[in-house]
Amino acid sequence: MLPLFRVTDVNQFAIGVDLGGTNLRASAVAVDGRVLEDFQISTEAQGGPDHIVQRIVEGVREVNEGHTGSELIGVGVGVPGLIRLETGVIAKAPNLRGWEEYPLKQKLEQALELPVMVENDANAAALGEVWLGAGRDVNDLVLLTLGTGIGGGIVCDGKILHGWLGMAGEIGHVTVDPHSPHICGCGNNGCLETESAGTAIRKMALQAVEEGRSPALAALLENEGQLTPLLCAQAADGGDPAAREIFEHVGWGLGIGLAGLINTFNFPLYLLAGGVLAAWDLFAPAMMREVERRSLTYRNTNTRIEKASLGNKAGIYGAAYLPIQAAREPRP
Amino acid sequence: MLPLFRVTDVNQFAIGVDLGGTNLRASAVAVDGRVLEDFQISTEAQGGPDHIVQRIVEGVREVNEGHTGSELIGVGVGVPGLIRLETGVIAKAPNLRGWEEYPLKQKLEQALELPVMVENDANAAALGEVWLGAGRDVNDLVLLTLGTGIGGGIVCDGKILHGWLGMAGEIGHVTVDPHSPHICGCGNNGCLETESAGTAIRKMALQAVEEGRSPALAALLENEGQLTPLLCAQAADGGDPAAREIFEHVGWGLGIGLAGLINTFNFPLYLLAGGVLAAWDLFAPAMMREVERRSLTYRNTNTRIEKASLGNKAGIYGAAYLPIQAAREPRP
Repeated sequence: MLPLFRVTDVNQFAIGVDLGGTNLRASAVAVDGRVLEDFQISTEAQGGPDHIVQRIVEGVREVNEGHTGSELIGVGVGVPGLIRLETGVIAKAPNLRGWEEYPLKQKLEQALELPVMVENDANAAALGEVWLGAGRDVNDLVLLTLGTGIGGGIVCDGKILHGWLGMAGEIGHVTVDPHSPHICGCGNNGCLETESAGTAIRKMALQAVEEGRSPALAALLENEGQLTPLLCAQAADGGDPAAREIFEHVGWGLGIGLAGLINTFNFPLYLLAGGVLAAWDLFAPAMMREVERRSLTYRNTNTRIEKASLGNKAGIYGAAYLPIQAAREPRP
Repeated sequence: MLPLFRVTDVNQFAIGVDLGGTNLRASAVAVDGRVLEDFQISTEAQGGPDHIVQRIVEGVREVNEGHTGSELIGVGVGVPGLIRLETGVIAKAPNLRGWEEYPLKQKLEQALELPVMVENDANAAALGEVWLGAGRDVNDLVLLTLGTGIGGGIVCDGKILHGWLGMAGEIGHVTVDPHSPHICGCGNNGCLETESAGTAIRKMALQAVEEGRSPALAALLENEGQLTPLLCAQAADGGDPAAREIFEHVGWGLGIGLAGLINTFNFPLYLLAGGVLAAWDLFAPAMMREVERRSLTYRNTNTRIEKASLGNKAGIYGAAYLPIQAAREPRP
């Protein structure tokens, strides 16, 4: 359990922002974990980084003014990309056009005159789950976000594990099957992501249709125009053997990956989040079977593998926790 | 780089002991890293834990008396087994008969009236390499010890990563090939250990002989009575294709395992140690090829994969560092 402030401090709060879409989601959270307010910051679709920073500054000021009597101690921003930690510059963000090399931390700090922390969104989500979510009772966990790809966040002793250059947690690109025919964008084959992420589900479903193995998936493709993981899950729920096999494969890959993490970290908790989680009942049995088989540590301990609980709020709350944690750290 | 004491403290030292054989190896190391003395503590072959503890106590006292003017601040013991960290009780030690459930820390502290730390030997070796070995310039590394099996030690932010129950670093049992025909003692197939450790080399060599694929290995088996990894390496050095293939397989497995670690931790350094290291030139090319292929992080950074430098001293020096590190920690 992360340490909480004493009652005398509860008038302090922080704001977390998710830099993930056109309209930014944000929350004001008190240092004791009470969510004071979830809010949105709307931006122009074509606005560049400077425009969006300006809107964040206005949004933060507005929310701050609504909480007179409380002290805003800082702002955290979750970003779908690689951050240079010391400077808060966005080093890589394939899905955020125009933000690479942008000095986000510096710009926000200058405008707000408050400490600002910038963090990778998967890392922020892991921290959020430890602070207020399914990981509230632990200090160490790994969070896997199962979306189009697979993102990872590692919290070790209550703090995000960044590694040397902030690139730790690329668990979606850990090899789970070196013989796999599935090629990954990273140049590897058999990454966890190529076996168990949303894109993998779609590709396997299309292959089943092409090979004439699934009339059910073929009908869905015909009706809907494309095969989403959700549609594939519907077919599996309806009993289609090819669709069921796809989710068995998803669980198989996840189980190999999780067993490796458990053997490596011996953490008490591993959380799964993201859209593919909706198919838990379809992939979890195969996943747990592989984990049982491939981790002596798992078989001999009460290690838990569970669903994350904060949904898309995890990254926002985790971002809000960053300036709170920084304020509490002993200065070096 | 681990912080060193100021010059005023250099008269302090600690003693590290390796509980690995009949005659225990030990070292006295000053807090600034100067090795004052390497020594042995001889024990009776049949002596039980109480006898050995008594001999350690005598050995420590004797060495301490030889360093008048210096202050012995504590003792660390590396144990080939699983330690209950809070109590210093040995929970599991398959290769140390009679030591399971033995309260090693308590017994030594009572007799010596000094702080005593007990640690898994692979973890101690990783810490030793960070303190005085090939990892001197980093704070984070993973050490893999390639012996009969494969042991792992993880140092994160200058401290051993223990995990929840002290079982972190079981990297030898991470699955690298889920389709492998090689069954592991842990109940899994395709563990890093079943593909790349000394026992794996021996098994693959025997298989090559049985299948008539290697006259060179068959001749060695005939002459020597058994096929050690070293003999297999000699055959490979002599150009035997089957023996060379075995070390390519060893490197392949190590490369998959290391790529996974690099993607997960983004540490700057990964060290290999142990007897199989003598065959570095035979397995390293295949290993590096797999790492290159399977880790985008490796390809984009100066991540280093190197030989450890302290040999079988690493665990002893690391054990000696434990009481030094504990003395320097801020009290909670």
